[in-house]
Amino acid sequence: MRVLLVGATGLLGTQIKRILEPQHEVITASRKGSDVSVDLSDKASIVAMFDKVGKVGAVVCVGGAAKFAPLDSLSDGDYAFSLANKLMGQVNLVRCAIGHVDEGGSVTLTSGVLAQQPMVGSAAVSIVNAGVEGFARVAALELQGKMRVNVVSPGWVAETLESMGKDPSQGIPAAEVAKVYRRTIDETITGQTLLAAKT
Amino acid sequence: MRVLLVGATGLLGTQIKRILEPQHEVITASRKGSDVSVDLSDKASIVAMFDKVGKVGAVVCVGGAAKFAPLDSLSDGDYAFSLANKLMGQVNLVRCAIGHVDEGGSVTLTSGVLAQQPMVGSAAVSIVNAGVEGFARVAALELQGKMRVNVVSPGWVAETLESMGKDPSQGIPAAEVAKVYRRTIDETITGQTLLAAKT
Ligand SMILES: NC(=O)c1ccc[n+]([C@@H]2O[C@H](COP(=O)([O-])OP(=O)(O)OC[C@H]3O[C@@H](n4cnc5c(N)ncnc54)[C@H](OP(=O)(O)O)[C@@H]3O)[C@@H](O)[C@H]2O)c1
Ligand SMILES: NC(=O)c1ccc[n+]([C@@H]2O[C@H](COP(=O)([O-])OP(=O)(O)OC[C@H]3O[C@@H](n4cnc5c(N)ncnc54)[C@H](OP(=O)(O)O)[C@@H]3O)[C@@H](O)[C@H]2O)c1
Repeated sequence: MRVLLVGATGLLGTQIKRILEPQHEVITASRKGSDVSVDLSDKASIVAMFDKVGKVGAVVCVGGAAKFAPLDSLSDGDYAFSLANKLMGQVNLVRCAIGHVDEGGSVTLTSGVLAQQPMVGSAAVSIVNAGVEGFARVAALELQGKMRVNVVSPGWVAETLESMGKDPSQGIPAAEVAKVYRRTIDETITGQTLLAAKT
Repeated sequence: MRVLLVGATGLLGTQIKRILEPQHEVITASRKGSDVSVDLSDKASIVAMFDKVGKVGAVVCVGGAAKFAPLDSLSDGDYAFSLANKLMGQVNLVRCAIGHVDEGGSVTLTSGVLAQQPMVGSAAVSIVNAGVEGFARVAALELQGKMRVNVVSPGWVAETLESMGKDPSQGIPAAEVAKVYRRTIDETITGQTLLAAKT
């Protein structure tokens, strides 16, 4: 199957690519250094990406950013950036995917545990992650029979904790998170938010 | 206690005003026809409202709009409208309330069951409602000791169902929903999303 992987050059994207490649043709996308160039915060570039790539069996998105900062230092611009990028970027990815995904194929978006578990600094990120999950439930319902829509919600990833100077054993390895993304392609689920956190 | 009620002229606002008035001084706010005029989609008007009203013991928001329409007819503008209005309007209400609410006082926002339960037509509304809940959990955590932040998530309200020509007995009366808002003022809870749905 042809799988379009947005955010393919990142920490999670690299592991998802690695795990999918034995079985699927993975087309990589990101702002720089991928098969196709896309900026999720620019809807026209998402439209251009699908025009270039053509029909796919699945889309996986592990791209998009949101600002992490304490409430008293998050600016109007930080909220606007976060909503336009990781939130509306992924919403627009689903909207633009319609007609470009094979019947029964899937789109998988990314949220994160901060959707449900608050943390000092996560105001914008929590809005975005919760919003992505809320949207995906509706999109899955309305697109039933055409396209599946799921979300993976990763917990802290071990490699990310390590790069922050924290204890990686408190996180889930990126390679384990990648297996959860694979389930959204292989299983016929829709409208689900799958947690991918250290157990 | 002085309570600032945003959206005071609406269906829920009218009942909340009625239930609070015996014990509290209710200052009403909305775009038209209230003590203070405010447009939640315009942050400057929220700042001006707090400057005018001065310190309060609690803020309750039952105002703000989001577009309800099937996925294939929701436009870019509909998403932008919804995010700027019911979502960022309430986020900005909390941000601007800091310093204007007495210590231990509360801000209560409004989401709705569509945050968790998808419905055909609710894509933008579900993003907004889930986003409000995600934000409030973080704001409550970061503002602990200063200000309480809670959300009320109403189910379908009986009067609304009736005005849509549907069976009102499937919904919760607005006067019952108002009692749940009152709990967020009277009890010392914070970071909660209280459901107010037909049981
Ligand atoms: N790592 C964690 O601990 C963790 C935990 C929970 C959730 N998550 C979520 O998982 C996702 C991936 O995380 P990660 O750690 O793998 O991130 P990452 O290493 O920073 O990789 C991000 C990827 O997305 C691409 N990208 C960034 N902005 C983009 C945009 N506007 N348009 C298109 N592509 C864009 C990047 O490439 P370019 O810069 O070239 O565009 C890169 O390929 C994010 O949504 C993150 O919030 C991560
Ligand atoms: N009714 C239901 O079945 C139901 C169910 C779940 C959730 N909810 C939520 O509960 C809240 C209140 O619902 P409702 O049925 O009481 O609504 P409503 O009757 O339409 O009242 C809305 C109130 O908000 C004010 N308002 C609207 N836009 C505003 C803005 N941009 N800035 C400031 N004030 C604004 C309105 O006055 P002006 O027009 O003069 O500004 C009015 O006072 C909404 O968030 C709604 O989504 C309702």
